[in-house]
Parts: sequence; C-alpha cells; structure tokens
Amino acid sequence: MTKLQGIFTPNLVPLDQNLEINEAELRRYVNWLIDKGVDGLYPNGSTGEFTRFTAEERVRIIEIIADENRGRVPILAGAAEANTRETIKACERYHELGVRAVAIVSPFYYKLTPDGVYAYFKEIADNSPVDVTLYNIPMFASPIDVPTVLRLVEECPRVAAIKDSSGDLPHMMRMIAAVKSVRPDFSFLTGWEAALMPMLLIGADGGTNATSGIIPEVTKKLYDMTRAGQIDQARDLQYRLLPIFDAMIYSAEFPEGFRAALRLRGFKTGRGRQPQSEMQLNALEELSRKLQCLLADEGFTDEPIGGCQVGESGEIDSQQIADIVQDVIREMRS
Amino acid sequence: MTKLQGIFTPNLVPLDQNLEINEAELRRYVNWLIDKGVDGLYPNGSTGEFTRFTAEERVRIIEIIADENRGRVPILAGAAEANTRETIKACERYHELGVRAVAIVSPFYYKLTPDGVYAYFKEIADNSPVDVTLYNIPMFASPIDVPTVLRLVEECPRVAAIKDSSGDLPHMMRMIAAVKSVRPDFSFLTGWEAALMPMLLIGADGGTNATSGIIPEVTKKLYDMTRAGQIDQARDLQYRLLPIFDAMIYSAEFPEGFRAALRLRGFKTGRGRQPQSEMQLNALEELSRKLQCLLADEGFTDEPIGGCQVGESGEIDSQQIADIVQDVIREMRS
Amino acid sequence: MTKLQGIFTPNLVPLDQNLEINEAELRRYVNWLIDKGVDGLYPNGSTGEFTRFTAEERVRIIEIIADENRGRVPILAGAAEANTRETIKACERYHELGVRAVAIVSPFYYKLTPDGVYAYFKEIADNSPVDVTLYNIPMFASPIDVPTVLRLVEECPRVAAIKDSSGDLPHMMRMIAAVKSVRPDFSFLTGWEAALMPMLLIGADGGTNATSGIIPEVTKKLYDMTRAGQIDQARDLQYRLLPIFDAMIYSAEFPEGFRAALRLRGFKTGRGRQPQSEMQLNALEELSRKLQCLLADEGFTDEPIGGCQVGESGEIDSQQIADIVQDVIREMRS
Amino acid sequence: MTKLQGIFTPNLVPLDQNLEINEAELRRYVNWLIDKGVDGLYPNGSTGEFTRFTAEERVRIIEIIADENRGRVPILAGAAEANTRETIKACERYHELGVRAVAIVSPFYYKLTPDGVYAYFKEIADNSPVDVTLYNIPMFASPIDVPTVLRLVEECPRVAAIKDSSGDLPHMMRMIAAVKSVRPDFSFLTGWEAALMPMLLIGADGGTNATSGIIPEVTKKLYDMTRAGQIDQARDLQYRLLPIFDAMIYSAEFPEGFRAALRLRGFKTGRGRQPQSEMQLNALEELSRKLQCLLADEGFTDEPIGGCQVGESGEIDSQQIADIVQDVIREMRS
Repeated sequence: MTKLQGIFTPNLVPLDQNLEINEAELRRYVNWLIDKGVDGLYPNGSTGEFTRFTAEERVRIIEIIADENRGRVPILAGAAEANTRETIKACERYHELGVRAVAIVSPFYYKLTPDGVYAYFKEIADNSPVDVTLYNIPMFASPIDVPTVLRLVEECPRVAAIKDSSGDLPHMMRMIAAVKSVRPDFSFLTGWEAALMPMLLIGADGGTNATSGIIPEVTKKLYDMTRAGQIDQARDLQYRLLPIFDAMIYSAEFPEGFRAALRLRGFKTGRGRQPQSEMQLNALEELSRKLQCLLADEGFTDEPIGGCQVGESGEIDSQQIADIVQDVIREMRS
Repeated sequence: MTKLQGIFTPNLVPLDQNLEINEAELRRYVNWLIDKGVDGLYPNGSTGEFTRFTAEERVRIIEIIADENRGRVPILAGAAEANTRETIKACERYHELGVRAVAIVSPFYYKLTPDGVYAYFKEIADNSPVDVTLYNIPMFASPIDVPTVLRLVEECPRVAAIKDSSGDLPHMMRMIAAVKSVRPDFSFLTGWEAALMPMLLIGADGGTNATSGIIPEVTKKLYDMTRAGQIDQARDLQYRLLPIFDAMIYSAEFPEGFRAALRLRGFKTGRGRQPQSEMQLNALEELSRKLQCLLADEGFTDEPIGGCQVGESGEIDSQQIADIVQDVIREMRS
Repeated sequence: MTKLQGIFTPNLVPLDQNLEINEAELRRYVNWLIDKGVDGLYPNGSTGEFTRFTAEERVRIIEIIADENRGRVPILAGAAEANTRETIKACERYHELGVRAVAIVSPFYYKLTPDGVYAYFKEIADNSPVDVTLYNIPMFASPIDVPTVLRLVEECPRVAAIKDSSGDLPHMMRMIAAVKSVRPDFSFLTGWEAALMPMLLIGADGGTNATSGIIPEVTKKLYDMTRAGQIDQARDLQYRLLPIFDAMIYSAEFPEGFRAALRLRGFKTGRGRQPQSEMQLNALEELSRKLQCLLADEGFTDEPIGGCQVGESGEIDSQQIADIVQDVIREMRS
Repeated sequence: MTKLQGIFTPNLVPLDQNLEINEAELRRYVNWLIDKGVDGLYPNGSTGEFTRFTAEERVRIIEIIADENRGRVPILAGAAEANTRETIKACERYHELGVRAVAIVSPFYYKLTPDGVYAYFKEIADNSPVDVTLYNIPMFASPIDVPTVLRLVEECPRVAAIKDSSGDLPHMMRMIAAVKSVRPDFSFLTGWEAALMPMLLIGADGGTNATSGIIPEVTKKLYDMTRAGQIDQARDLQYRLLPIFDAMIYSAEFPEGFRAALRLRGFKTGRGRQPQSEMQLNALEELSRKLQCLLADEGFTDEPIGGCQVGESGEIDSQQIADIVQDVIREMRS
C-alpha cells in the first residue's frame, strides 16, 4: 500500500429541491475535482456534513463516488457511525467498494478521556478490513492526544494515518516526532489549510482541505510548490488562500460559506439541510458577493454585477458600523 | 395540556450480551421507576445514550417504553435525528405513541450561532404535532441563549418547555424572568441535580435527572420536600445526593458510573456500547465498590464484602497518592 | 474572633480630576455605606481595582478606610502584592490598622496548578498575623479547588474564610461539605450576587457583593430576608436585583458599570484609570440612562430627563438592530 | 531606527539567598548571552517574572542590564506597570537608559474587550518617548486581535512591533497581511519557539524566546539557518529544540523549568519567589535530571551521575504509572 499523500478533497454533497442527494450533480462535481488534479477524494467528512445524512445516505454517497471515480484517485471514506459495530460494518462495506482507507472522527457529543478515545479506535482498527485514518478535530470532537496516537500506531497496524484539523503546528510536530521512527509509512494530513505551507514544511504529508473543493487550482498548486521547495511562491499563494478560506469559514455557519462559493464555480449545490434564518440568508447573500470578488481577483469567476470596489473583498470597517448602531439605538429611544 | 413538572427520569437502556437492547430488563426497569414514584420518563436522553443507537433502535426504545408505561406517567421522548426532516418524522411517530412531549437537543458536532439554533428549532416546532422541549446542554451541544429561548417561545406555540443542563442558576433565572410573563404555562426543567434544590427554589418546575434513574427515592424526595418548603430537610438531602452524583458523573466516562450504580440496584444493565480500556474497567470496579458504600450509607444496598471503612465512600488523599507515584518513578529510574 | 458573615461591601475608589484618590469623597462614601447597614467593608478587591493602584496607594486606601470606619464594622482588606514577602508585609500593616481579616486573591497572570496555589497561600497564612480569606475568582485568577481549600484549612489556622466569585452552587456545596466538620468556624462568602439567595440557602455565610456598594438597601435586604426564611420575598428581591447586576456587569468593562451607577447615587466617582475609547464612553452614557431607569424603578433615583419608556430598562431587540445593520452595510456598498 | 529583528532573549533574574536580585550574577548572565550571539535582550518579560518584582525592582533590573550591556545589543524593556500613567513614566525612564523599545503586555487580571485594549495602548503610545511593542499573550492576558493591531498601527507611529506568544500561525499571517502594506517597518516577533521556523518562513522578523536564555546556541542557529533558507537543517534543529522547550515549559510551573535548566548551564539562579510545595520541589529535581540528559544530548552539559538510559530524556510510560497507582489504591483499601 502506498502512503496517503497530497490533497484529499472533502466534498460537499449537492442536494436537489427536496433536499435529496443530487446524484447527477455529485457525479459532475467528482469529475471536475479529478480533472482539476486533486490527489484523492474524501467524502463524508465535516465539509460533507456526514452528521446530517442518514446512515443509508452515507453509504449511498460513497457508492456514487466510488462508482464515478472508477479507480482514478484514492478515496478516503468517512465511516463514523453510531457505535463501533455500525462503524465496522461501514468499514467493511467501503472496503468492498475499493476505498483506499476510511477516516473515523473521534467520538463526539460525549467528551471522552484519552483512554476512552484509545479504546474506541482500538476496537475499530482491530476489526476493520481497510486502513483507518484517525480524525482529530478538537473544536468539534474529543481530542486525540499524542500518547494516544502513539499507542494506537504501535498496537494497530491498520491505523495508517491521522487527519488533524487543529491547525496547531507544534502539536503536529510532536506527533511526527513520536510516530515517525516507529512507523515510517504513517501519514500525517492537516485539515487546516490556513497553515498548509508551514505544515508541509515541518513534515506533513498532505491535507484534506475544504478549499480544495472550491478552488482546487490554488490548494493543489500550494501543495506542489511547497513540496518543490519554491518557498517564496508558496508563501505568496498561502497568503492569497488565507482570506478566501477565512471568508468561507468565518462568515457563515460551516459549511454554508463553502456551499455559496461552490455555486460561484458553477455547481448546483442546492441549499443545505440545516435551516437558515432570514438574517442568515441575507448574510449569505452578502458573503456570496464578497466571495465573488475574491474569486474574481484570482480569475475564477467574473466580478458581480456592479463590479468590485477596491477593498470590497475585505471587511467593512467595524468601528464605522458600531458608530452607526449607536446612532440607530439613540434614535430608537427618542 | 398540563404543564410539565416534577422529576422526569432519563433511563439507561439495558443491553444483552450481544449489546442488543434487553427488552425484558428495560420493561422491568420502567415498572420499577414508576413504582418508585417518578413523575415521568425521559428516554433517548444523554443518559440513554441516544447517539449510540441507530435511528431504528431509538424508535424501538420509545415503543417499548410507551407500551410498558400504558399511560401511567407522561413521557418526554428524545427525538433528535440527523436533520430536521428526520426529527419531524420522529416527532410524528412519538406523537402517535402518545408521548406527552418530545425533547430536542440543540445541534451538536457543528457549533451553531444563536441564529442557527433558532432556525433549527423553529423549523421543527412549526412542523411537530407534539409539544417540543428545548434541550440546552452547552458542554455537549450548541448553547441555547436567553434571547433565542424567548424568540422561540414567542413564535412557536409548540415550544412548551426547556431542559437546561448547564447548572447555572442565574442563567435559569434570566430565562424564567424573560419567559414567564409571556408564557405562564412554559416549563423549566433542570438537568443538573447537583443544584436541584436551589433551582426549584428560584422557580424551576422540575428536573430530568440521571440520579432519579438510580436512586429515585432520594431525587423524588428532594423534589417533594423542596416543593413543600421543608428547606432544612431538603438541604440535608441535597448534600447527601451530591457525593453520589459526583461519584457517578466524574469518576468514569459518562454514563458508565450510572450504569455501574444501576447494577447495584439489581438490574442487568449489560455493558455499554462505548468500548472501555482495561484501565477504565479496573477503575469502574473501584468505582462500583465506592458506590456500593455510598448507596449502603443510604440504605439502598448491602455493604461490599469486607465492609466499608470510615471515609471509604470519599476520595483517597491525593497528596498521598502523588507521593507514592513520586517514589515509584524514582525507583523505576534506578 | 467572630465568624465573618453578612454583606461585605467591595468599594470603588473615587478619583479626582488628576486620577488621584479623592479622599474626602471616599470618606463620605464609607460613611454612607455604614449608614445603609452593610455588615463590613472590603477595600482593595476587584471592584476596588486594586491592580490599578500602586503598592503605596493600596496601603493609603486601607488607612483612610480604617480611619474613617473607627471600628464601626469589620474590615476585610485586600492584601495581594507582587510576591509573598510583600503580601505578608501588607498583612502586618493592615493588622496594625485593626482590620478583621485580609483577603488574598489566588495568583494571577501565571496560571498555577493546585499545588502552586497551595504553596502560595500556605506561606502567606503561616506568616500572617491576621486571619486570611482565600479569594477564588477563576475568571481572572488561578482557580482554588476543593482539595486545596481543605488542605489549607487543615494546616493553617489563620485561613478563616473563602470568598468565591465563581457563582457555581455545587462547587460551594462541595467546599462546605468538605470543610464544615473540620472547621465549623470557617466562613463561606459568595462574590456572585446573581445567586446570593440560593448560595445562602445552601449554607453560605454571606457575600462580598459589588451591588451592595451601589444599592446596599437591596443587597442587604436580600441577605436579611433569606436568612429570616422569607423565601418568597427574598426570591422576588433576587429577581429584581438580577437585571441591575447584569446591566452593571455585562454592559461595560468591569467595573465601569458600577462606577456609572454610583454616580447616580450622588457620588463624585471621577472617571477610572483604565482609558476608555470614544465608543466605550458613548456606550457608558447609554448604560447610565438605562441604569437610571432601573434605579428609578426601585425608587433610588429620579427618572432621566425625557422619562423612561416601558421596557426602557431592558434590552433593545437584537434582531431589529441586526436588520438595521444589514441595511446599513448594503447602503455602504452602493 | 532599524527594524527590530532576530532573537531577543527574555532573561530570568538570578536571586540570592534572601530572594533579592543577584546583581553580579545577572551581569555575568547578560555578558554570557551577548557572547553567545543573541540579537537583543528582553528584560521584564514573562520569563523575567515582572509581576513578582516591585515597581522599584523592575526599574533596577533595566538599569543593571542597560549598564552592563553598554550599547552592545538593542534592549526591549518590559514596561507594564499598574496603570497607564505609571507605565508612561517607566517608558520615559527606560528611554533615558537608552533602550531600543519597550514591550507592554496587554491588560491582565481584568479581561478587556478589543476596544478597551485599543484605548489602553493608544494612551500609552501617544505619550511614550520610545517605540512601543505590543505584547499579545492570550493565555495570560486580554487578547489583542487583528483589527486592534491595525488600528493602533495606523494611528500611533510609536507602535513599532508586536510580540505574539499565541503560537498561532494563521493569526500571525493575518496580522502580517493587514499591517505590512501600511507600515513596512513594523516588526513581528513570535514568543512561541515551538513554531519558530514556520513563523519565520511565513514572514515573522524574529522571536523573543525563553529557550534563547538557556540554549542560545540552538535558538540563534535555528533563526540563522531558517533565514538563510537552509530548510532541512532548520527543520532538524526545530525538532531538536521542541522536546527541550516542552520539558521546560510543561513539566513545572512557569518559569521554574527554565530556572532549573539555567542552573545546569552554570548560573546561580537561586530559587524563585513563587513558593513551591515539597511535591513540586521533588518534581523539579526529577525534571532537572531529565533536562540534564536532554542538554547532554546536545553537548551543553555532562550527563548526570549514573548516566542517562536510552529514552531517559523522554516521558515514563503513563499507562505503567496508572497501573501502579491502581495497585497502590487497592492496597490502601485493604
């Protein structure tokens, strides 16, 4: 088995008007991603809103993607289910479908201790017919600490990689330092592309990055340039990626910013299953316009009607807004 | 419809050797709880490990409990599913089964803004045929803040109660102050029995408390005495409940401490679906002995073999342990 | 020595136009507080902004207050200095000045472990000629956990009380349960008046509450009624205190809200030493108007010019503001 | 004025047996640091325990260091005092002493809003005769966010640099992206050497790093190699620095680990002013032995008596310890 490396794209799932999976559009999207050169596909991740689909739908998503992929790129399939037995069943099914590995998010809702996290992954890894990627995303799920990673790597040959979305450089280094000599084939993937270049420079093998589902051209080039040691160009690209990433991730409920951006790339995403308030929908419209300016800057779309003023892609001055709000409140009082 | 009040018991689900629902034991447990005088049942809550069952199993649990209950006490059925459509379907099904209300935990995994939390509950409440209880548990799920509660209460007649597990007294008071004049029928339930007496004294209507599934005698009496204004006796009871609650909730991965205690009350709980490491199993054994002493103090079990030393129910001195560990490390070095 | 109990008022320090201590106004304020019936004075607390004065000024504040007090009420003097030696010197000086006890905040800036917190208080308590109150305020300083309190209480006869500003009811109960049998004379004071009534009902001996420096009539009456077992009246008062407390503590940088309110009670507070931006000053003006309406509701001031609309003391609808902001941003774009 | 760049060493202050400043040893230490090639000195930082000295002692420390330095390297002097007036006085005094710039930590104890942080630095920067470095250390003090940095940089010519100890790469990039075009002379220093190489690679100008006070040879070389584009050698050095940094920062109350290590380099540090419990002193002894092995690995000291076993510099297996503790507890029970 070759080591997992490069950019694995966590795909959004296009929905139709009834909020059902839009299979045709999903297939078109998969082809587009592969054509753009991503190194692998990563369905049923956080970007893919795995928690918002039923167990049956999650399987269906992998089936569609594996079928459309036809072996062109490796698939890393999100396989976390309600409990270890269901998760192991999913591992078996995805193995039959030919995925390269599964990714299992650390237990969430309940916050587990390191020992509980260990026991969870141990049971899955000992029973999975396919390589397992640990998925550490401490802002959403029980953290996987370095001793736990080391313990699992030492005891479970099936544990083949970690996807870490903490964005914490020293943490990644501590994992690499602990694991590398024990298991040189183990793969370290970062889920936080705001730090993709530095992560690669200190030894990460690649990333599973939501931006690669929107602007694969940029994320992949950033990976390639960093790998090629073109530090100055890579740094420049990292600085260009950052505001686009920030806009998509911080200006709306995740992953709505990414959905809005994907629409700008020409895909019929439909709306998401998480309901949005009217205020949120208005904010999404604003965000979409801002994203269009950001993407137009990079040549991926036209400017919105009316064009982009200088700095439109940036934030409106928060002090100015605060002052206006003060005035408004004062008027409302009188 | 009468207001939700009193102690609603969030039940654990006994499992058999294959980790399947042990229906007979679940039925026996339900009868025992009702015989002990709890005011209502609350299946598919956090104590009931709703996330570790499949969608089908969650329905089955409500079916069993509704059937066994035969209308004796009101049922508050946990109904959170993968998305709003699935959740609304569950509301419909549980309504057919005659539950008094459903309880919906705030969205988890993804951390939503107040506006997102609002939109989520709004869509569910507008489409549910049965009363909806908001479930706020900020340590596990997106918090539901006071303005959001107020907004939902004002717009959605179906929103009939909140279960708040934050344990934050002033927060509960702020909710009561905001909502009471608008909707006098609205019910405030606390999920944090460490503060049950004070919560009731500042106006809460009852609780959904895991201890009531283990020692319903104590939790219910605490409720009754506080309601009757027997402050001194209630305070004494609250102080006796606290170390038992603490031992069950802090000495093991939730809800393993409660499972261990329920076994001491004579129920075949089976083990849980979350795997436990050997170290965790050893710790659970220790905890069980300690719980047995605590429960024996209250007259609910016999003392363990060998008896309980004075203070056995308490903590071993942490300084003493630390010193021993230092010695051990020093020896390991030489 | 009698046990510390009742309401100890943490006083603000009035400043003159040069930001120097306004001694005359401080003396007038002390007399007013004593006349209003507070049980004790608590200078150099967080409300007293002890960190913003020099070491010399902190001593001067205690000298003024001890002199003006003339033994009428017990003084609890904040005595935390740069290190234990300086702190012990302050304890000695305040002992000479006749204070009942000192209060020492847990080490801040650096976050210490429980063992470090223990060592710090142990050294001070073993060398102080006057009773020591532990001051636990985990939002600002290293937390003091229950085992550390117990250890200090057992080893140090000078440790006579704890002031806890966490507002966490079960935490207070755990401390009381651990300490009461060992040291029945030990005093438990809460610094979080949002929960004053429930804290007293579960066994606290009193409070050091900033509201008692602004509306001593309410805070003291709440204490008295709760102590007298007049639960219904006390609850009503607690609900009336809460929005005033919330407005003062959450609507401005602490303790600016309290300073603004104290001005409404007729004291020349001067402005504080922490600079305020123009936006903050505008917000303080708004807050002052709102506080005036809240205090007028309770009969402590006149209404502001123009009067108070119904609900003026409450929040303006946040949705409404959000909508206006959206409109403003949209206009700014075009 | 030249831009601040390179490695500025935050020095510990050696104390004598009476816990007074050991001036002779401090002078010897300063000379040693300069001889080892550090680019600047940074007294009165967190490593220098500025909060544990009196105001007079803080001035004395700068006087000694400025005198001993005799203009050889630029000095960045920590100048935060009780309030802005005292801080400005310190800025004036340190300016007379010839420091290159002062560093002012964001307000601590009270947690300020961005607007409060802005107002604080604005008042200082508008009145300081010497360049001001903003010091962001969110684990200890009010965070300084990117819009606040930008606002200060735009309005205050004296604000010349930021020292950021968050260790957050994308945060550093956001600051650089926001400020660079406005003020090309502005300097970005990282206080988190666990990420020194990646920080430099994305554009930071240097660091104020506690390790450079212990092993200046390594920290300085890491800086030089990264700057020279020797990525592979720099990465290797970063990986060697990390466990030494981790051992010093995480194995004891800060900065005790650094103090223990400095003793191993031959300096009479004395003990610190923060008292240590017996358990902490024992742990420090263990740490010292471990640090000696780590430093011996790098050739900076001899091995401790008895030598270093393979892996001694690493952690003892935590599972093993846990098992022993279980056994101990079991025995204590019987």
